[in-house]
Formats: sequence, C-alpha cells, structure tokens
Amino acid sequence: MIKVGVLGARGRVGVEVCKAVHAADDLELVAAVDKDDALDPIAEAEVVVDFTHPDVVMGNLRWCIERGVHPVVGTTGFDPGRLDEVRALLAANPGTNALIAPNFGIAAVLMMHFAQQAARFFESAEVIELHHPNKADAPSGTARRTAELIAAARAEAGLDAMPDATSQELPGARGADVDGVHVHAIRLAGLIAHQEVILGGDGEILTIRHDTMNRSSFTPGVLLGVRRVRDLPAGLTVGLDALLDL
Amino acid sequence: MIKVGVLGARGRVGVEVCKAVHAADDLELVAAVDKDDALDPIAEAEVVVDFTHPDVVMGNLRWCIERGVHPVVGTTGFDPGRLDEVRALLAANPGTNALIAPNFGIAAVLMMHFAQQAARFFESAEVIELHHPNKADAPSGTARRTAELIAAARAEAGLDAMPDATSQELPGARGADVDGVHVHAIRLAGLIAHQEVILGGDGEILTIRHDTMNRSSFTPGVLLGVRRVRDLPAGLTVGLDALLDL
Amino acid sequence: MIKVGVLGARGRVGVEVCKAVHAADDLELVAAVDKDDALDPIAEAEVVVDFTHPDVVMGNLRWCIERGVHPVVGTTGFDPGRLDEVRALLAANPGTNALIAPNFGIAAVLMMHFAQQAARFFESAEVIELHHPNKADAPSGTARRTAELIAAARAEAGLDAMPDATSQELPGARGADVDGVHVHAIRLAGLIAHQEVILGGDGEILTIRHDTMNRSSFTPGVLLGVRRVRDLPAGLTVGLDALLDL
Amino acid sequence: MIKVGVLGARGRVGVEVCKAVHAADDLELVAAVDKDDALDPIAEAEVVVDFTHPDVVMGNLRWCIERGVHPVVGTTGFDPGRLDEVRALLAANPGTNALIAPNFGIAAVLMMHFAQQAARFFESAEVIELHHPNKADAPSGTARRTAELIAAARAEAGLDAMPDATSQELPGARGADVDGVHVHAIRLAGLIAHQEVILGGDGEILTIRHDTMNRSSFTPGVLLGVRRVRDLPAGLTVGLDALLDL
Repeated sequence: MIKVGVLGARGRVGVEVCKAVHAADDLELVAAVDKDDALDPIAEAEVVVDFTHPDVVMGNLRWCIERGVHPVVGTTGFDPGRLDEVRALLAANPGTNALIAPNFGIAAVLMMHFAQQAARFFESAEVIELHHPNKADAPSGTARRTAELIAAARAEAGLDAMPDATSQELPGARGADVDGVHVHAIRLAGLIAHQEVILGGDGEILTIRHDTMNRSSFTPGVLLGVRRVRDLPAGLTVGLDALLDL
Repeated sequence: MIKVGVLGARGRVGVEVCKAVHAADDLELVAAVDKDDALDPIAEAEVVVDFTHPDVVMGNLRWCIERGVHPVVGTTGFDPGRLDEVRALLAANPGTNALIAPNFGIAAVLMMHFAQQAARFFESAEVIELHHPNKADAPSGTARRTAELIAAARAEAGLDAMPDATSQELPGARGADVDGVHVHAIRLAGLIAHQEVILGGDGEILTIRHDTMNRSSFTPGVLLGVRRVRDLPAGLTVGLDALLDL
Repeated sequence: MIKVGVLGARGRVGVEVCKAVHAADDLELVAAVDKDDALDPIAEAEVVVDFTHPDVVMGNLRWCIERGVHPVVGTTGFDPGRLDEVRALLAANPGTNALIAPNFGIAAVLMMHFAQQAARFFESAEVIELHHPNKADAPSGTARRTAELIAAARAEAGLDAMPDATSQELPGARGADVDGVHVHAIRLAGLIAHQEVILGGDGEILTIRHDTMNRSSFTPGVLLGVRRVRDLPAGLTVGLDALLDL
Repeated sequence: MIKVGVLGARGRVGVEVCKAVHAADDLELVAAVDKDDALDPIAEAEVVVDFTHPDVVMGNLRWCIERGVHPVVGTTGFDPGRLDEVRALLAANPGTNALIAPNFGIAAVLMMHFAQQAARFFESAEVIELHHPNKADAPSGTARRTAELIAAARAEAGLDAMPDATSQELPGARGADVDGVHVHAIRLAGLIAHQEVILGGDGEILTIRHDTMNRSSFTPGVLLGVRRVRDLPAGLTVGLDALLDL
C-alpha cells in the first residue's frame, strides 16, 4: 500500500486523480490539499501528485523533496532552468526521486514513441490532429512535438525530403510545415482530442492513432508514475516514456 | 445483350472499360476504337463509352448521336456551353440519350451525396483528402467540390458559421478554406486516392470515407451508365448521381 | 417559443433533455416531471418529451394526447400492437401528432440510411460495431438493424450473395451472420458506442462511421423532434428518419 | 554496390524483387534464376533473394551457403527443424549469414511489434483484419500471430482477463478467440490486406493500422534485408524485426 498525497486536489485533474487513487487497491489517499490548505498532511505521504500551477509548483516540490516525499508532477511550465533546479534539490536530498511529465496519457506517449521509431522506414509521414473547436492553438503541442520527433528520426536515418509534386495549392491545403513534416489540424464539435500519424512507403501504409475519450484518460499514466517513481533511477526522470520500458 | 462500343479503347481507362464490358454477361463489345481508327464500327453499337480527349469528344458525340448511338462520356472539359451544344444535338435527334459524368466512381459520388445530405444536421464539417505524392493540385477537385456542396447545404439550412476558437495558428495548420469549409490535403507515398468527410455535433461524429484501391474503380459506374443510359429521361443527363436513385 | 414538458425528467436521459431545452432560445421548459410527481404541469406544454419506462409510457401518452400535448417519445418497448394503440388514440384526438423513435442519434440514423442506400451498389458489405465492455448484447441492436436493412436493399436490387472464399475458419472469425451480412462486435475499455459499415466493390471502398462521444449525443435529435412534431403528417410518425428529409 | 541474385525470379514476388533491385542505385542484379534454370549465375552474387517453394528452398540454401552467398529468404514452410538445419549449414560455413522472414512488409512487422509493446498498458485489445474475399483462411496468419503476441505480453505483465459483459451473443459476433484475444476477419471485394489492432483503457484508445496497397509492399523489406544481411550477427536471423533496431 503506497501512501499518496494530492496537491491541487480540487482542480479538474486533481479530482480525477483523487478518485483514481481512492479506487486503486494498492494505493491509499492520505492527503488531498488545494491552494488554501496547509501542506502538512502531505508529509504523511510517500508519493505526492502535483497538478497545480507554474507559480506554486517549485515551492511545492522543495517542500516535498526536503521531507522525502517523491513527487509525480503534471503541472506545466518546466523549462530547462526549472528542471535543473529540481535536479539540484534532489541531489541535495538523496533517496528522493521525482517524475515530471508533460503528458500522462499513455496512448499519446506510445503514439509519439512509435511514430518516431517507424519514421525511419517510410518515404512519407504526415500528422493529423483533431480536437474540439474551443482549442486556441493549431496545431496542438502534441502534434507539433510528434512532427519534430519524426523529422529528427528521418534526419538521423539520412532520409531525403518527402516526395510532393504539389504545384497548385489553395493556401493552407497542405497544412503547416513543422521541420518538413506536414501537420493538419481539424476542429470539430463533438471531438475531444485525437491524433493520427500516417506513414507511407512503397505500397504500404502504417497509421498510429490516439483517441482521448474523456477527461480521465491521464489517470492510468499518473498511477503508473505513483507506483514506479520510488524505483526509478536516482534523481529526476522527465517524461512518461522512461516508465514504459519501450 | 447490349451492344457496346468504346472510343479511346487503347487509353488507360479505355482498356479497363473494354475488359469490363467483355467480362459482363449482359454486354457485348462490338467496337473498340482509338484515335487512328475509323469510327464506322461504332455504328453497330447501341451504347458508346467515350474516354477520349476534350479536343475530339464533341466530334465523337455528334457522329454517335446522329447515328442513334447513346453516349456515356467520361471525357473531361464540359463547360456549360458544351453541355448546351450536346443538348441541342440530342433535341435534334430524338430517341437518343447521353450521359456525361465528371466522376464515374460510385463510392466517390455516394460520398459527396451523403456529405451534402448530412451537412444540414451538424455544427461542424471538414474534408480530408489523401492522395499519392505525384498529384499536382491540392486539394483535389473532388474535395473542393465536396466542400462547396457542404457549404451550400449549410447555407440553405440556415446554419451559422462553424465554431472555431483558433487564435494561434501555424500558417496552414487549419487547411484551405473553401466557402467556409476547411479542406486538408495529405500527400503520401503508398496512397492512391482517398477522401474523408467528418461531420460533428453535440457528442456525435459521422464520418464518410471513400478509398480508391486501384485504377479500375470507375468501371462499375461506367457499366451502370451503359445499362441505364437508354432508359434515362430524354436528352442529356449530367452526373452519375441521377442513376443512383438516391 | 415552444412550451416543452419533460417526463422522466430526473432520469439519465431526461436530465440531459431538460438541460438542452433550457439552453435552446426557441424552447421553454414549462414542466419537468418524474415518477412520483403529478402530471398536471405537463398540460401547460405544447410538446412533451417522454423518456420513461415501458410500464408507464402508454398511460403517459393517453394522458398527453387527450389534452392535445404532442408527444416525442424515446421510451423503448413499442411493438406493432402498441404502435396501433397510439395510432387509435391519435385518430380519436385529431390535431395532435406523436413521434416515436427507437434512436434519436442523428448520426446513427443517417449512418443506417446511407448504408441502406449504398448497399445496392457494392458486391460486399459488413458491419463492425464497437462498444464499451459493459454491454450485454452482441451485436448491438443498431448493428443488427443495419445489417437487416443492408440485406433487404441487396435483395431488392437482386444482388448475388457476397463473395467469400473462406474455407478454414477459426470459429467466430467471420462474425455473426444477420440475413447474410457479417456483423462483428468489438468490446473495449475506453470506447463508448461506435459503428462502421464498410462496403466494397471493384477497386473502391465506402465506409460510413458513427461515433457517439458522450451521453448527450441524442439531444439534437430530440430537439429536432420537439421543433417538428406539430408539423408532421397527422397522426403517428415512427423513426427520426422521417424528419431528416432524406 | 551489392551484387544480388534472385531465385524464383519469374514468380509473382520474384518479378517485383528483380524490378526493385534493378531500380536501386546501390544494388546490382547479377542473376535472375527460376526453376528450369541452372543455379550457376547465382555464384556471382554476394546476396541472394529466395522466394521459391518449400520443396526446393533447402537445396537452394545449401548451394548458396556453401558458395558464400548470403541468403535473404521469404519462402514459406520453415519449421523449427528446418531452421536448425540452416543454422548447422551456416555454422559449417562461417562468414555467411542468412535472413529468413515470414513477412517482409515493414509496416506489418512494425504493427505487430508496436501492438506487443503497447499491450501491457491497456485493459482491452482486439484485432481486426480485413482482406479481399478470395482469401481461404480466417483469420489471417498475421492476425493470429499478432493476437498471440498480445496475449503473451499481457500474461507477462500480469494483466487480468479483458473486461467483457457479453451475455447474449449471436454466434460469432464477438469473433474468434486466440489465447483470449478476440480476432475479427472482414472479407470485402475491393480490399487487399489490412489489419487494425485496437487497444483501450480508461478514457483512451490506441489504434495501430497497417494497409497493404499493392503487391510490391514487401520490396522495401526485402531490400533492407539485402543491404543488411552481411552485417547481421553471425549465422541465422529469423524475422525482419531484428533489422529494424526497435
């Protein structure tokens, strides 16, 4: 039984995390704390999940790490400088690990990983992401990151530019160009968050698709982090990939 | 047994049409004529299939219609003026009908028809077309036409503009705008010709997809035209839709 | 402004219907009644939505129809006998119409309609339905009904049996046989309710897919019924199709 | 420039391999041999591709390996006994390697690999394969193998049986059971060879799909084998996976 605390426990994500911890046989929810609460109950936890805000997460991490509570963090805003700060904190408190991941959706993380692995073997690859129409950015951060990973894998494998004879294009028809990879963003009422990577070569196509069907899609990834964080290599782990043994 | 002649019989499409006519139990191939051949054997046919060239098709049609041979035409280049010319020819030769269709792929024609019918009922609709990378235009003519049909159906139903909160767009990410309908063109080695219309509303999505798997995909539509042209309403019929009893 | 009453207002579906009526500019929610409430407030409504139970729906309908309130009914259990009873009630109360529909999902109804229309033109057609793993029946009622419609359309068009050279089959691999149409049921955690009809012929494939993304997917269909029921042909209308002008 | 010989050069596959070798800048086709030809020209090759017949392939391999020609083999019928025989031959002729693969389609091999990797992380997984209607076996060998790999990965990860509340099943609706994984076989005119693995968990779905679009889809895998066979670990390599650095 792992004792788990949740920071940001009344936020949209935190609520789902609390439910999932509560429902898991091997986990015990010992503290559910939000912004106006004292942190003290968290000291009882072995692992803490933080889905709070960039403004407070560094303070939370310092507090937890100094008390030997292993953080699993989905809060955004970690640039290289912040990651280095966390590394220093962990070095000063040996025996405590931290996991920080920009995406806790296991299917999304697998999709990106597989796309990157497959990219070397196909002449062509494009990314289509499909989201609800309230999304502000196009393409999504995940689509952009996927395209960058594909481009890097192609470059490393020494692949030529993708074939494309387009000579008459209605502006935008071929999508956005991210490092030479075309990325298309669909916005449709009724959709949630979906992405498709299509890779094509001589007579064969490989498609890797990810569908988020509801807002709890990240909880299996968070629980995996909670269960594994203490046994990760000493210090900081960035990204869920590292836990997937791929 | 319908006696069938083929004009453009040695062209890429004509060869497939000859094969298909030959293989059909209810059709007899009585003439296969190409550009250096005399037209005379075509006079024996009841129906003639013309996949030739805009430069010669009008002469072919006059020759056939004057001899009471019903033309089924896939040759391109028919603008309203040419269609009126054909109508006049048919009026002068009562008892002879003609079918001219820009697309003989039944699945493609159904896709467009269904997209148009469904468009009234959904807040959002986008078009994704996927083709081999040797294609010069993006989006395809079929995708553009589909988007126009969707836009017209929405306008007639009095629908508002589609919801779209995009405020930060990498150029092209949201595709091309055809009468307010976003159209995305994918180009990928290994693909042939494919199109997907996605319609979305409150909690439900309808997708209509068409895949062309090889170059004979138009032959069922041509044979349908051959079998039905004599029984169509007197004069000229434009588009395969009219034969599909939709 | 149409005055709307809801019967079964505290049920899972009724709650969503109340929300949707409330949110619509042209509708006014004048009565929300559930099983322990008196029916009287419903008398104020012009249209009543009934998502209750087969045990009480006939009494509800009699009460409403006798008071000139037009019912829109999603409650299940209407066999031909019950439908005839409703027809008699309406005949005795001229000026009041009723709409009874087994499925208010517009995308699902369109999928079935399009599948039926397209079935005549393809050598092969199969149905794949995909649902959450808590579903008791396989295949779903919608899939079974779709297969029946496809089979009927093929029979009417005089099509031969579908080609299938399978000679070594692991039991069940080819799915269930519904009137000669193969139907496959997938059960997967994370899914909600989805169905795909795939039709194939010489070199081309047409796919019609429906995805239910959440539990409010039926509300647009219910609202359409509410807005249109008073103007339908006098008496009883069965099925949402009749309102879609297909 | 690698000197390549082809055995079975006039067979359906061999013809495509010869074309692909011929078209590749870094490969030279030095011998194209079929069943009535002498093997001698093959001795000039560094690598030989064998798509022949189970009855003759063992003789071919002995002849090639004894002459230091590295075989890349797509011929079927290799059971463990035959593989051991090849291993013994290679051990007796150090410096010569062989690659034997049941499937040279890179997309298909990646699909299987990714399915196996992902299977550990999802409550549910099913396999849908879709083929032309002339196929004799259902499900396909690839689908069956994929299901076995998924089942093994789940067992190793200690996953429970997949959730499935089906209590009323039309026979066959839930597909074939391969080690607890449901496998569905679709047969449709117009299709070639396609497979989809769908994995689902709490609120998210991962789909991995492979489409074979024409008969040359295996050539990139064969060429990869040709280019890499000499540098593989000494002796026999079974399966294309080993060359994909996954």
